[in-house]
Amino acid sequence: MKVLVTGGARSGKSRFAQARAEALGPQRRYLATAQALDAEMAARIRRHQQDRDATWTTVEEPLDIAPRVAGPGVVLVDCLTLWVSNLLLARGEDAPLDDALDGLVRAVAEAPNPVVLVTNEVGLGIVPMNPLARRFRDEAGRLAQALASVCDEVVLCVAGLPMWVKGAPMEDR
Amino acid sequence: MKVLVTGGARSGKSRFAQARAEALGPQRRYLATAQALDAEMAARIRRHQQDRDATWTTVEEPLDIAPRVAGPGVVLVDCLTLWVSNLLLARGEDAPLDDALDGLVRAVAEAPNPVVLVTNEVGLGIVPMNPLARRFRDEAGRLAQALASVCDEVVLCVAGLPMWVKGAPMEDR
Amino acid sequence: MKVLVTGGARSGKSRFAQARAEALGPQRRYLATAQALDAEMAARIRRHQQDRDATWTTVEEPLDIAPRVAGPGVVLVDCLTLWVSNLLLARGEDAPLDDALDGLVRAVAEAPNPVVLVTNEVGLGIVPMNPLARRFRDEAGRLAQALASVCDEVVLCVAGLPMWVKGAPMEDR
Repeated sequence: MKVLVTGGARSGKSRFAQARAEALGPQRRYLATAQALDAEMAARIRRHQQDRDATWTTVEEPLDIAPRVAGPGVVLVDCLTLWVSNLLLARGEDAPLDDALDGLVRAVAEAPNPVVLVTNEVGLGIVPMNPLARRFRDEAGRLAQALASVCDEVVLCVAGLPMWVKGAPMEDR
Repeated sequence: MKVLVTGGARSGKSRFAQARAEALGPQRRYLATAQALDAEMAARIRRHQQDRDATWTTVEEPLDIAPRVAGPGVVLVDCLTLWVSNLLLARGEDAPLDDALDGLVRAVAEAPNPVVLVTNEVGLGIVPMNPLARRFRDEAGRLAQALASVCDEVVLCVAGLPMWVKGAPMEDR
Repeated sequence: MKVLVTGGARSGKSRFAQARAEALGPQRRYLATAQALDAEMAARIRRHQQDRDATWTTVEEPLDIAPRVAGPGVVLVDCLTLWVSNLLLARGEDAPLDDALDGLVRAVAEAPNPVVLVTNEVGLGIVPMNPLARRFRDEAGRLAQALASVCDEVVLCVAGLPMWVKGAPMEDR
């Protein structure tokens, strides 16, 4: 079972993804792409960690996530837009990302274990003036499309509630 | 019956919310959080007022809305993101809002009358550079999640049309 | 059959709209509102053209699209938000657009042939500071609502996948 969870900021994506992951198996690994570069981010990371109990182990990896998607138990990757942002920062804003994005899609498709992935909808506002912001939303959108095509479920979170874009709602399984 | 109506700018939220409120009872109160601080806003307020007939009374209240949610008849609150913005302006951008937001959620949950609430999706674009804008969308998103959890229906408006996120479509009731 | 396809940037709108148009008839016309004003846009136009085979003819028209919606075969208009932007640039940012927008809605409603229209969701981010950007998203939103009311199907694309806002999913027809 592969699940892509998307939605806007503060739409309940992480909470839904955690609950979905916990329903998929007793052993859980949280693959965090966030780095505590400032106080705002550090506080957010701490808040998320406090929501996970001892059945979870946490791995922090800002860049090389594809090799860490396969593994024993359920893997939750949170979140992919931050990963795209980390890649653009690390490689430079004009460098290609296709190898990394394709590598992740392949790793998700091939993983024998359940994988839950969290991404952000970032393309439903006014076109950003900043070329890097436009590139970021292009890459994030293309990645979401590619992952959605290999996932069994795609869920859009709105106001903390799931809308199934692909796959059956939980109550019907 | 408690209904949360969300959606982007010009997605038909207010029109849908008014129709939904009118289906819920013959006596209606419109609780407006907008203040006519500039010509653009004044024109918008006038346009919305012209869409409501004599069965509606209008109350303008930019800040203290929780005590006005209970009452005889149907209450329509339009809109909550403007209310969050009013609170941030009135209290200062670093002041906590939890008491006000929690108070509204409690008032909605406890109101014996039907309540329809309009909010805006503001978190599906690029992360804003401005810290106040980030805080605004965080607070608006958290409020929407908390209200959604106590509402019977949550509706996402897209191109003037409702998508039910929670609760049954009207034709099925 | 009239179909409105909406969604964020890189949500798979154009690909879905093309597939939907191809299912509606063997003769297809692509009405492009894009102008290759810079290298980024020229590259995007080339990419889209390469995705269409010889059953498609292409017409480029940035402004006067209403008279070109009727015609033999299926017409696909891609995209309407760019058209609104072209109109604002051509007429001036304070000039009224109602005649043009109403004319398109009428042309779509009256066309005897299948029409598929692509638009963008641009109103789910933070309210833009720029008054022109606010006007753009107001006009784009109003146009989407008016077109949705005369279309048989309205589809919201998320991560490359369709969510039907109006009309039955294809597998049910």
